[in-house]
Amino acid sequence: MSLVLIRKTAPTDAWLAALHARCPDLSVHVWPDTGPREQVEFVLTWAADPGVIAGFPNLKAIFSLGAGVDHVLNDPTVPAHLPVIRMIDPSLTQGMVQYVTLMVLQYQRSLAFMQSQQRAGRWIRPQPGPRRIGIMGMGELGSACARSLAALGYDVAGWSRRPRQHKDIASFYGADGLTAFLARTDILISLLPCTPELENILNQQTFSQLPRGAYLINAGRGELLVEEDLIAAIDAGQMSGAALDVFRTEPLPDGHPFWTHPAILVTPHIASMTSPATAVEHIAVNIARIRDGLVPHGLVDRKLGY
Amino acid sequence: MSLVLIRKTAPTDAWLAALHARCPDLSVHVWPDTGPREQVEFVLTWAADPGVIAGFPNLKAIFSLGAGVDHVLNDPTVPAHLPVIRMIDPSLTQGMVQYVTLMVLQYQRSLAFMQSQQRAGRWIRPQPGPRRIGIMGMGELGSACARSLAALGYDVAGWSRRPRQHKDIASFYGADGLTAFLARTDILISLLPCTPELENILNQQTFSQLPRGAYLINAGRGELLVEEDLIAAIDAGQMSGAALDVFRTEPLPDGHPFWTHPAILVTPHIASMTSPATAVEHIAVNIARIRDGLVPHGLVDRKLGY
Repeated sequence: MSLVLIRKTAPTDAWLAALHARCPDLSVHVWPDTGPREQVEFVLTWAADPGVIAGFPNLKAIFSLGAGVDHVLNDPTVPAHLPVIRMIDPSLTQGMVQYVTLMVLQYQRSLAFMQSQQRAGRWIRPQPGPRRIGIMGMGELGSACARSLAALGYDVAGWSRRPRQHKDIASFYGADGLTAFLARTDILISLLPCTPELENILNQQTFSQLPRGAYLINAGRGELLVEEDLIAAIDAGQMSGAALDVFRTEPLPDGHPFWTHPAILVTPHIASMTSPATAVEHIAVNIARIRDGLVPHGLVDRKLGY
Repeated sequence: MSLVLIRKTAPTDAWLAALHARCPDLSVHVWPDTGPREQVEFVLTWAADPGVIAGFPNLKAIFSLGAGVDHVLNDPTVPAHLPVIRMIDPSLTQGMVQYVTLMVLQYQRSLAFMQSQQRAGRWIRPQPGPRRIGIMGMGELGSACARSLAALGYDVAGWSRRPRQHKDIASFYGADGLTAFLARTDILISLLPCTPELENILNQQTFSQLPRGAYLINAGRGELLVEEDLIAAIDAGQMSGAALDVFRTEPLPDGHPFWTHPAILVTPHIASMTSPATAVEHIAVNIARIRDGLVPHGLVDRKLGY
């Protein structure tokens, strides 16, 4: 039995070393090398070309290299019965909590204003920004971010598909809960997965339900955001700005208006990276569970799309 | 009995309202109004002019408006027997934790690099910076910052005068512990009080014991830092930069080299502000304790200077 690692635009050495160390009996190939295709039981993949996964006749499960799985579910040739497993990795969670915390603090504590005052040689104390935070998507990453921001003294609410209870976090859910959630949110953080239902949810109508001058942090998926609606909302003063780590097209294309918009902070999809050294545990445990007929951790619900 | 509030460069309305609400029997005057001087039992002060405090013959205690008390102890006319009480305020602590967390994250997650790449329209992922944090001063503020940074996944150590134990925080102490503490610290955070012993402790010799390329965050006191030593250490590559919130002279004077140094982030002493709404509890409780002959919370040890 073997595993094929499909990762086209980033190094694979650390993954190979971690998999060999933790799973010495597993034969690992790096795409386009596959070894005998009929022996491949697992793929560990990020954005394989459509049709690639379907080329392994005896596959038992598909591991995503990241928290998102839309890159697998959007490939119509992937057999529908195959388990798809999202990445759960403490380093991935930690990186996202750091990124979201940084973006909240730089906005709410007026870092950009202070930097511009420094360039002008002026000693002017800024007013702190508004402090009600709303997190869309309260799964593994969202709930960890919520805990971190609540510990820093922010007033945090979460919005999710189903009702969820979190200590010190106000919880809203479903389409019915969205309006009330948005109305009390000064800093909107998107950590949603990209499903057909959620695509374009960050749009003019959503922005219009936020208090005037709200701020957006999108670290979920680029497809959640209607880019021109954000620019229009900022230019109209409804939104005060945004920090964006994910985009509909990555790298963000030359000449895209986000590059030069003074109220938009662009980061090159660095919020969080899976760490092979820690993530390999999730893979090893799940291979063992699948062999034992147990449901793997992080199994994706294809109907929900995450 | 009465209290005189001495705060020359900032508004006093919120303090008056909070004191009246929490201590309705306390007569409060705002300097230079004092009411009958012999009736003044308490002053609540930031940087009163030398001699002012000594002008109240029946004073029972001096409250500092901030965590620092050097502004009181440096006035030789203040009677040595008078209790001096530092501010302990949850808002003060929270603001400092936010500031220090922001400054660590913006450095370690390479925010300035990403901002400059955005200006250039370039999609280049930065390497995260080194992650060993060392906090000088592990009192109320330092230990709260240490907990926050440890929760974000950083490797945190503290250095203090006396040995202290903190969960998940490596503890160093005294002159003997300083070298080992500095040798393992990539991001040095100063939250020390300014005492004669500690003045100028952030100097060339200290910087030279840090790993090459270390970063400084000074949110303690401006007098702790030998400013020209920092610039020399940055220009020599020994330090990679600094975020500074406090300065020997505030506001930072026009033409000061910190304003324009590309590796120094200047913030206008905004790390943390005492909030009257929450801090008034500390004052009310301590007035009651002093009346009852109990030692107040936050009593300063004059020999130690904090």
